[in-house]
Amino acid sequence: MTLVAPAHLRLARHARLREQLRGAGLDALLITSLPNVAYLSGLFASAAAVVVTRDRFTLITDGRYLGIAQGLVADMPGVELVITPATIAFDQALAEALCVIGNGRAGFESAHFTVKRFGDLQARLTKLAPGCELEGSEGLVERLRILKDEWELEVFSEAAARLSDAAKCIIPKALAGMREREVAAVIEAELRRVGFDKPAFDTIVASGPNSAVPHYRAGDRVLTAGDLVVLDFGGVFRGYAVDLTRTITVGPASARQRRLLEDIAAAQDAGFAMVREGQPATDIDRGTRESMTAAGLGDAFGHGTGHGLGLEVHERPRIAQFRAELVGEPLQPGMVFTIEPGAYFPDWGGARIEDDAALTTSGAIWLTDVPRFWTH
Amino acid sequence: MTLVAPAHLRLARHARLREQLRGAGLDALLITSLPNVAYLSGLFASAAAVVVTRDRFTLITDGRYLGIAQGLVADMPGVELVITPATIAFDQALAEALCVIGNGRAGFESAHFTVKRFGDLQARLTKLAPGCELEGSEGLVERLRILKDEWELEVFSEAAARLSDAAKCIIPKALAGMREREVAAVIEAELRRVGFDKPAFDTIVASGPNSAVPHYRAGDRVLTAGDLVVLDFGGVFRGYAVDLTRTITVGPASARQRRLLEDIAAAQDAGFAMVREGQPATDIDRGTRESMTAAGLGDAFGHGTGHGLGLEVHERPRIAQFRAELVGEPLQPGMVFTIEPGAYFPDWGGARIEDDAALTTSGAIWLTDVPRFWTH
Repeated sequence: MTLVAPAHLRLARHARLREQLRGAGLDALLITSLPNVAYLSGLFASAAAVVVTRDRFTLITDGRYLGIAQGLVADMPGVELVITPATIAFDQALAEALCVIGNGRAGFESAHFTVKRFGDLQARLTKLAPGCELEGSEGLVERLRILKDEWELEVFSEAAARLSDAAKCIIPKALAGMREREVAAVIEAELRRVGFDKPAFDTIVASGPNSAVPHYRAGDRVLTAGDLVVLDFGGVFRGYAVDLTRTITVGPASARQRRLLEDIAAAQDAGFAMVREGQPATDIDRGTRESMTAAGLGDAFGHGTGHGLGLEVHERPRIAQFRAELVGEPLQPGMVFTIEPGAYFPDWGGARIEDDAALTTSGAIWLTDVPRFWTH
Repeated sequence: MTLVAPAHLRLARHARLREQLRGAGLDALLITSLPNVAYLSGLFASAAAVVVTRDRFTLITDGRYLGIAQGLVADMPGVELVITPATIAFDQALAEALCVIGNGRAGFESAHFTVKRFGDLQARLTKLAPGCELEGSEGLVERLRILKDEWELEVFSEAAARLSDAAKCIIPKALAGMREREVAAVIEAELRRVGFDKPAFDTIVASGPNSAVPHYRAGDRVLTAGDLVVLDFGGVFRGYAVDLTRTITVGPASARQRRLLEDIAAAQDAGFAMVREGQPATDIDRGTRESMTAAGLGDAFGHGTGHGLGLEVHERPRIAQFRAELVGEPLQPGMVFTIEPGAYFPDWGGARIEDDAALTTSGAIWLTDVPRFWTH
């Protein structure tokens, strides 16, 4: 597996993006969301942008990324590289790349562009190409990113296998007596050991009463016999995020704890059974939620069932309850997402079980593969 | 030391912010930058905002943070808490808190507010308070954050002591044969062990030729005898970031390596000697750079000398070369910043030495305290 998507797949993304441009009636699109830039170019940088027109593709970055950017454009014929010198403002280079369209409509990513930066770009463009009109657009690249290509699915498969290896090594460890933050350190060291570049988010180790707080991180509490402990962690591999949660007990599980874990695992399976091409993503939530409700856990399950994975750890599709404003995205081959039901009881504790799944042309598959729970 | 700034200090920040509001002729300010929200309220949340008017202070967050937010406002008399129900959009609550000023000028943080969100807020506000005018503002809270108060200086002192402890434990370890990413894992586990909540940024372990790349992270290269290895790491403690770099050699240093480390350490001292109340921050860069240049390292030192530290790892003051557009901020007691000269030679290697310093009412002090280099 190559370190970045092969050039022909990156070029195919450009072609699909140009279809979006035509659909939106745009002559150009300025891309400043860094995950979107990485998706189109293969360049992971802290300062980079892309300008796409009907017939040009310009990657803009600064001198720190010269070598790697040259390597990337070398195998993408027709792609132009602009390295901004330290003496000019980065956004001047964006304005110059945009103004080639002359009088035309240039889209920008309004959800990834600040008001301050917009004012600055507008002023630069007025000087260079007064007939060029800036227009806010949304989700044109994100829409492409929902459907993973063959290289991305290979990356997910490998990343999930490594995450599963890490989980199997971490989770059965004797953790009693350790502080939550020490357990987080063990997990993050293990993520590095199996080859992740970094954690995909702040590792969660929530023990005892803290396990009832879905967004807790990791603190100073010492893991104690009788605790439920939610371990939620993930890693970034080749730029892509994978994510897994297991809930363990410190010492033998009580009958109530065991029952809770069994019910959540069953609900997760019920959600997975709804993963079918053409069905709305909200169906996965419905299947999961109905199973939780049947087990008496409906009220304790206060969050959505899952989220898409990709260059960001939370992407489309949203696997949540159907709401009018949440367009029910039909499930399609190439989608990768989590299924993560949980139930939380203030002062007593909580549990969540999360795995990563994909819909492929041959049906739904689990990407992660780790026992759902250990109850001693 | 309390977990968050004591209430009287948070309230003093509100008073100073209201002076900024008056100076800018604003009737209200909407704060959406999360570090700015944390600074004013003590709440570290992924969804939160503050609306300040001449006589009201409203903290807005969602149900996940109910308990902690209630605790924070309880000791700040006059501060109002709004918990947004899941059924309304978060920004509707912002619009409602802003519209109390009726016909007036409401500032928003234009460098932290997207064009999309601005359009949405404008539309909501037009319905609620058509006479309320939104106006982009910049840096009103950031300006206050430059000067740390007594509690913040105590946090920095403690955080830097812990970072120094971690460094002294990590750096002399026998690292030969380990991969860069494994060394990064060791560093991050040690940061957790000494009590940091998380790394302040992606840990850098740059060995051999990679040490010549200032923005390298950590990869698969195995540390090999003869290497220079740049270790750049930091942690977040009570919300505040500290940052340290040491460059080690794997095995005994060559004469050239030893000379390089001595010259960089001397340049760092020369920069520190320029830390004096009332002098421009750019003087620290000048002192460092002159020393580097005298040692023949001027051309190899391609970045600024340092940056302010605080709730973000890169803050004001900028310790860089004087440029017309970089207003020379006069150094004042309460400023906390790094001094980090480095020299990089492509294909051969590079080195950087970074420590954290503060200007206090009794003069400049180093916060971190670790031997500058080990050359065996």
